Amino acid sequence: MNPHIQPVPLEKAYRLLNHGPTVLVSSRFDGIDNVMAAAWACALDFAPPKLTVVLDKAVRTRALVEASGRFVVQVPTVALLDLTNEVGNRSLAEHPDKLPEAGVELLRLAGDTLPFVAGCAAWLECRLVPEPHNQASYDLFIGEVMAAWADERVFRDGHWHFEDAGPEWRSIHHVAGGHFYAIGEPMRAHGADE
Amino acid sequence: MNPHIQPVPLEKAYRLLNHGPTVLVSSRFDGIDNVMAAAWACALDFAPPKLTVVLDKAVRTRALVEASGRFVVQVPTVALLDLTNEVGNRSLAEHPDKLPEAGVELLRLAGDTLPFVAGCAAWLECRLVPEPHNQASYDLFIGEVMAAWADERVFRDGHWHFEDAGPEWRSIHHVAGGHFYAIGEPMRAHGADE
Repeated sequence: MNPHIQPVPLEKAYRLLNHGPTVLVSSRFDGIDNVMAAAWACALDFAPPKLTVVLDKAVRTRALVEASGRFVVQVPTVALLDLTNEVGNRSLAEHPDKLPEAGVELLRLAGDTLPFVAGCAAWLECRLVPEPHNQASYDLFIGEVMAAWADERVFRDGHWHFEDAGPEWRSIHHVAGGHFYAIGEPMRAHGADE
Repeated sequence: MNPHIQPVPLEKAYRLLNHGPTVLVSSRFDGIDNVMAAAWACALDFAPPKLTVVLDKAVRTRALVEASGRFVVQVPTVALLDLTNEVGNRSLAEHPDKLPEAGVELLRLAGDTLPFVAGCAAWLECRLVPEPHNQASYDLFIGEVMAAWADERVFRDGHWHFEDAGPEWRSIHHVAGGHFYAIGEPMRAHGADE
């Protein structure tokens, strides 16, 4: 395994999403892998850490999540900008070779049951918390984070270090179409004591 | 009214939150106003536009939202960094003068029923979509966006223009404690056609 990939304590896992990055959602069922982009993902709780993600009824990843009850939410970087845009625009149903065409490489972080996208800054392994009403009415899925990892070159000691990493490590934040913003400079509020 | 504040068409309202900024949530009931900071807010639907926001049981704003069924989600900027941090850290119960102490100025955008925070980049006026199970189990609240506005100096024609505005207009993205990141530079994915 890439020696830069280190576990993140569960109580710090929310910090991987707290600043609102666009994420990749991946899942596997019955030998089928898929990866999609999602701007509508958000932390929901600290302990145990939970998150929400919106999965449209049209996306194939949703069926894999519902069937397997497991998924990964991962934080792509500027280096994966085109990949993120492509997996967000192409459907596995219409493009069976979507993942290799988009340049997705998968790695193994937690056994053989989930596809983790290589090159991301952080990964959150999730168990679906079934809420049929939310899923049916709002396309809203809740995941409990079972384990988390980050690349220590950009997240370590419980904090992002975008300012010390190369520009290719910045998280990306989708606006619309192919337009994103990279995360920018650190700010410290007056009187901040941490 | 500030002539720079312009309505945002409802079908573009999701773009005000799509890049994951930390927001201010405000509400009013029975003559009491409050404003809190929330990093856990997220778009939920396009049309009609909806959003989710996590409101802890300990926060006073939650009681105002539950009682009034109305709230505002607004996007603060670097210029409001200290204000955002302060309203996020202080409770109205312990600090009755929390809003003036934090430098909050309120403005009127939609009648007299809601407090809008002056100086923000965008405002989304929301109606609570009651979901008692989500609220009780997850502190998760759903709002339908009834109207939206933005300051045209940083959001116009359905797009953010952070790169053309001064650095004080960047949205802020909370990590933990008093630490935030400002949003950074625009990125365009290869083949983006919009």
